[in-house]
Amino acid sequence: MDERAIAILGGTGDQGLGLALRFAKAGRPVVIGSRKPERAVEAAEKVRAAVPGSDVVGLENADAAARAPIVILSVPFEHCAGTLKDIRARLASGQVLVSMAVPLATAVGDAATRMLGVWQGSCAELLAALAPEGVEVVSAFQNVSAHRLQALAEPVDCDVVVSGAQAARRRVMDLCGLVPGLRGVDGGPLANARIVEAITALLIGLNARYKVAEGLGIRLTGLPGA
Amino acid sequence: MDERAIAILGGTGDQGLGLALRFAKAGRPVVIGSRKPERAVEAAEKVRAAVPGSDVVGLENADAAARAPIVILSVPFEHCAGTLKDIRARLASGQVLVSMAVPLATAVGDAATRMLGVWQGSCAELLAALAPEGVEVVSAFQNVSAHRLQALAEPVDCDVVVSGAQAARRRVMDLCGLVPGLRGVDGGPLANARIVEAITALLIGLNARYKVAEGLGIRLTGLPGA
Repeated sequence: MDERAIAILGGTGDQGLGLALRFAKAGRPVVIGSRKPERAVEAAEKVRAAVPGSDVVGLENADAAARAPIVILSVPFEHCAGTLKDIRARLASGQVLVSMAVPLATAVGDAATRMLGVWQGSCAELLAALAPEGVEVVSAFQNVSAHRLQALAEPVDCDVVVSGAQAARRRVMDLCGLVPGLRGVDGGPLANARIVEAITALLIGLNARYKVAEGLGIRLTGLPGA
Repeated sequence: MDERAIAILGGTGDQGLGLALRFAKAGRPVVIGSRKPERAVEAAEKVRAAVPGSDVVGLENADAAARAPIVILSVPFEHCAGTLKDIRARLASGQVLVSMAVPLATAVGDAATRMLGVWQGSCAELLAALAPEGVEVVSAFQNVSAHRLQALAEPVDCDVVVSGAQAARRRVMDLCGLVPGLRGVDGGPLANARIVEAITALLIGLNARYKVAEGLGIRLTGLPGA
């Protein structure tokens, strides 16, 4: 396993592809995962075309998950638990699994401006309940616009509130620093994902009311050292 | 009723007093309400001392509520329903009642970084269920630091996500414009208060982790015209 690699499962979707582009641009090896390996290969080609010389491969999800110390789960909420079950046997103690999906009510045919109630409290906590022992789940990246991630020439201008166990969340906060305009913010324990995930639904409504196709972001004001 | 007046019930508390100071400084007549009229009178004196020449009076809550077209309910969550019941008979159709409390778990002895589940979904929706017909409840101001409101020499640097029925929320968004550094943002329907209220619990945790005594704020990035 390459210690600098970042795996992105569902890296063929808009937000996952955006992260893949940004991490590749930052010079990190990227492993794109997909349920269908040929789609992952295709997405990897897209990234290599946009970021010449980048080290990006496409693999089936479980193969991808075994290839990086940090595995970002970038599939829609309704596929998160199933994907984790599919890759579970390939995860090893010490790996960090990043939850970035949001339980939007679209999963049951309702609006993206509304949330589903998740028994465990959030998508991140649902995944934590299913993750193998020693694999820390960290919540991050929910509020970052896919469009802005993909616009490689521009900084993203968004804070990423990162929550989870302390050492693991530090590692993910560091990842944020690889992307111009993203700032990792210490979001405390994983249960705070309940709030951070919901902010996405609020942003989706704001995007519609203000007709911001590129997607809004959030910033915390008054942070020391900012 | 003075059409320019703003009533602040619980205006003796930190955040209510902060809003009273800011609206008085903006030249608006302010009516401070409290359960105990002598405490309201005392708070009004404080505001007049800080903002010489300002038009500020202190009254018992129900008397204060009858004196302004916009009534801001700035009491702790656990006293919101009771206060509304106390003033209900004095509210008239066309008034706007602003919900700014947050169902923090402190109401039941747990931490301020966690939320209570409210049957109606949020404090604002609870109040909407109890408000007299024709009185619109609007959710706003939850995420604004009391400390920064009270520091009159400095701009506040925070967006206020305002949700509720459209005409009423426009009126409250306009109020935000009276305070330097506050910006009213169109937060859509009242149910979005569920998310905005929860952001306060997240900010309280961030304030502690980053040791920001003055309190953090939030900004939306990418808003048109910003």
